[in-house]
Amino acid sequence: MTTSPDSAVREFIAEHRPAFLDELAEWLRIPSVSADPDRAGEVRRSAEWLAARLRSTGFPVAEVWETADGGLPAVFAEWPSGDPDAPTVLVYGHHDVQPADRADGWVTDPFQPVVVDGRMYGRGAADDKGQVFFHTLGVRAHLAATGRSTPAVNLKLLVEGEEESGSPHFGALIREHAEQLAADVVMISDTGMWGERTPTVCTGMRGMVELQIDLTGPAQDIHSGSFGGAVPNPATEAARLVAGLHDADRRVAVPGFYDGVVELTAQERELFAELPFDEAEWLGVAKSRATLGEQGFSTLERIWARPTAEVNGIWGGYTGPGGKTIVPSSAHLKLSFRLVAGQDVEKVRQAVADWVADRLPAGIGHEITFTGSTRPCLTPLDHPALQSVVRAMGRAFEQKIRFTREGGSGPAADLQDVLGAPVLFLGISVPSDGWHSVNEKVELDLLAKGVETSAYLWGDLAANWPAGKTAGEMGNA
Amino acid sequence: MTTSPDSAVREFIAEHRPAFLDELAEWLRIPSVSADPDRAGEVRRSAEWLAARLRSTGFPVAEVWETADGGLPAVFAEWPSGDPDAPTVLVYGHHDVQPADRADGWVTDPFQPVVVDGRMYGRGAADDKGQVFFHTLGVRAHLAATGRSTPAVNLKLLVEGEEESGSPHFGALIREHAEQLAADVVMISDTGMWGERTPTVCTGMRGMVELQIDLTGPAQDIHSGSFGGAVPNPATEAARLVAGLHDADRRVAVPGFYDGVVELTAQERELFAELPFDEAEWLGVAKSRATLGEQGFSTLERIWARPTAEVNGIWGGYTGPGGKTIVPSSAHLKLSFRLVAGQDVEKVRQAVADWVADRLPAGIGHEITFTGSTRPCLTPLDHPALQSVVRAMGRAFEQKIRFTREGGSGPAADLQDVLGAPVLFLGISVPSDGWHSVNEKVELDLLAKGVETSAYLWGDLAANWPAGKTAGEMGNA
Repeated sequence: MTTSPDSAVREFIAEHRPAFLDELAEWLRIPSVSADPDRAGEVRRSAEWLAARLRSTGFPVAEVWETADGGLPAVFAEWPSGDPDAPTVLVYGHHDVQPADRADGWVTDPFQPVVVDGRMYGRGAADDKGQVFFHTLGVRAHLAATGRSTPAVNLKLLVEGEEESGSPHFGALIREHAEQLAADVVMISDTGMWGERTPTVCTGMRGMVELQIDLTGPAQDIHSGSFGGAVPNPATEAARLVAGLHDADRRVAVPGFYDGVVELTAQERELFAELPFDEAEWLGVAKSRATLGEQGFSTLERIWARPTAEVNGIWGGYTGPGGKTIVPSSAHLKLSFRLVAGQDVEKVRQAVADWVADRLPAGIGHEITFTGSTRPCLTPLDHPALQSVVRAMGRAFEQKIRFTREGGSGPAADLQDVLGAPVLFLGISVPSDGWHSVNEKVELDLLAKGVETSAYLWGDLAANWPAGKTAGEMGNA
Repeated sequence: MTTSPDSAVREFIAEHRPAFLDELAEWLRIPSVSADPDRAGEVRRSAEWLAARLRSTGFPVAEVWETADGGLPAVFAEWPSGDPDAPTVLVYGHHDVQPADRADGWVTDPFQPVVVDGRMYGRGAADDKGQVFFHTLGVRAHLAATGRSTPAVNLKLLVEGEEESGSPHFGALIREHAEQLAADVVMISDTGMWGERTPTVCTGMRGMVELQIDLTGPAQDIHSGSFGGAVPNPATEAARLVAGLHDADRRVAVPGFYDGVVELTAQERELFAELPFDEAEWLGVAKSRATLGEQGFSTLERIWARPTAEVNGIWGGYTGPGGKTIVPSSAHLKLSFRLVAGQDVEKVRQAVADWVADRLPAGIGHEITFTGSTRPCLTPLDHPALQSVVRAMGRAFEQKIRFTREGGSGPAADLQDVLGAPVLFLGISVPSDGWHSVNEKVELDLLAKGVETSAYLWGDLAANWPAGKTAGEMGNA
């Protein structure tokens, strides 16, 4: 879907691009590494810098929010529309960055950004400062091109400072400020697109249930010659559990696991299949030699849209050099289940617990510890907000916008849960940008497309928002 | 089967019992702990003490044998019969002992033996000095009662000094001295009986094939959200191998594994079933809460007479606290297969290797390392040498002698392999003797029965030996 670009927007962006890039570079020079306790001050400086910059952009509210337990600060900003029916959009991003050290293989100092061949290199260029920052110029272009003095939507920004450290206080933060954060749509500005020539919108992330299973057999390791073959072996039973996770078609064999799964539509499968997916190249990235997964689904479908069961760790018995002929006294599993829209975390937990209890023979004790969970999120292709994102990107890129999903799981679901709003993803980063790696960069032309998308988006959203509908009625799955 | 005891033998033993026990105590005071490098000198002193004692018993040859690589010495002794058709018997035992420290919970000093309530307490009392030493008084009683000046059989003794350290040089030692050790029958004097009131003869030991399987998947741990469910996971495949080891009846499912297995005879099953086996008590010793094993067999049959597959260790992926959502790059298994008579070590190895290769999906690499193996040994109930042992024990115990087997695997099979002779087991130790534990002891009345059995055995063997038959024709399986 493409619609015509706006020359006023483009001119405004072109005019302000040099200053915009200078300011982004200034922000990138603040080494806001949240994982490094010695740089807590830099993370705070980054928050203060951003809040000041948002105020100068025009946000009437732009403040640094403290997090619980002396955690690292977030930034909140708000710019009301003034229009009575304007929808409220909350943009999410983060201002902390991954650690980076020149000695790791950076060609230039990771905290002294440089522009080379149309790319800005520096830690945080793509993940996530660049993708937060494009909204500042975006909203100004939106105002300049429309002649408005306030955005067409009630625009809120929440930019956390602990995302690269696992967002330990994020849930508490958004619950504490739920009223101020209330929104009709959450726009995650911390993802990417399929590729430089293939602009895409991500429509969902998988959820997850993680657990550890501890099995016990004999009260201590016992001699396999004297007792082996006549008593249950917890390592054998751990292995039988793992082997039983999948049936012959590599479908998850836990009864009830697929209950409620939102199946891929024929349209989605067609759209995924249109993506220029190169399996050999993907295997290279996966550092794997072959694909294997649920029968009847493509690789992209398997990682984006199908629930899975994976063993992340297994251990029990003797693991040293040589042999030791024992029946081990215990064995342990770490499992994770990826969930898709329609699956319920609590129901999956119960299904797994029942399944485990049902499969173990007499003489094997077990304990299950659920170590974490994240709900899946998915926005249907026909959701009006998603359609607005597609139109805005289409005008910016002058190309058909395709769809992806994200196989991983993230704090986006927290926002969905706490705010009860559908979650959309808007990103212009590409796989070559080097997230969490060396020589992280952002493509400046794509960054400009991000600015442009942001400039079109608020007007489109306001114009096409079904006034008076609540988020719950908007069909988020 | 019982036959009448010999009063001359009993009188001789009773007369010499006090001096015999004093000498045994003297030997037990030598702390011949082979696992402790600081006590290598004590192991040597033990060997020299024994050689001297065997010479004073009457053995014309009694010498200390060095082992390869500066290992700990063994003792060899030989006393030819002089009768042209006399069979040759090699008695095997060991003079080294397990470590022992009073602080571990010994009531008395483990190397200052004491006699209390008809039991001699001390490290090595049962395992194995007591059970080696009863042959010295045994052969003297045999001579005294028969009026012979030489034993009725060509009697050889091989008493190693590294059994408690895994017999690292034993194979080389017996290959080096194969000619001197040549025998028609090997008599292992390092085992026990069912119990104080249930004298038994062990008729075989299981063999073993041990291996490690290393599986590789992705070249490094990869993100389970981005790739999980679409590439093979080596931990899953390791678990599927383990789970596939057994079928629903808990029979080993490796094709060809049971080829050649010598099945239990109806007679053996009946005899096993007559043993006073208390499953609850056995579970207590096994520190287990339930039995589980091959369908259609009793617990004793499973551990003594059926081949098994056991996972001794399994590991792969993340095993630390919390969760880590990865597809691990590798996973590892340590497996051991216990073998029974008729199974061939090489064929089992090949069957396992084929089975593993056959079950792994594309994208999973594997390497198998066979870490050790031992052949099974079994002497049929109607073997004439076994019948002699049963008759000799029957005269000593004046009770029906029953049969057991040993579920473990040991160096006995090396002797069988190198010497080509059937292996028999003669022991008077009982489960309460505390092998490898604290307060090891030997029951003095049972020790005297051992002396008496030894005194009857050589005459019975010589009288019933099918002259001119070679060991290979004697039906050892």
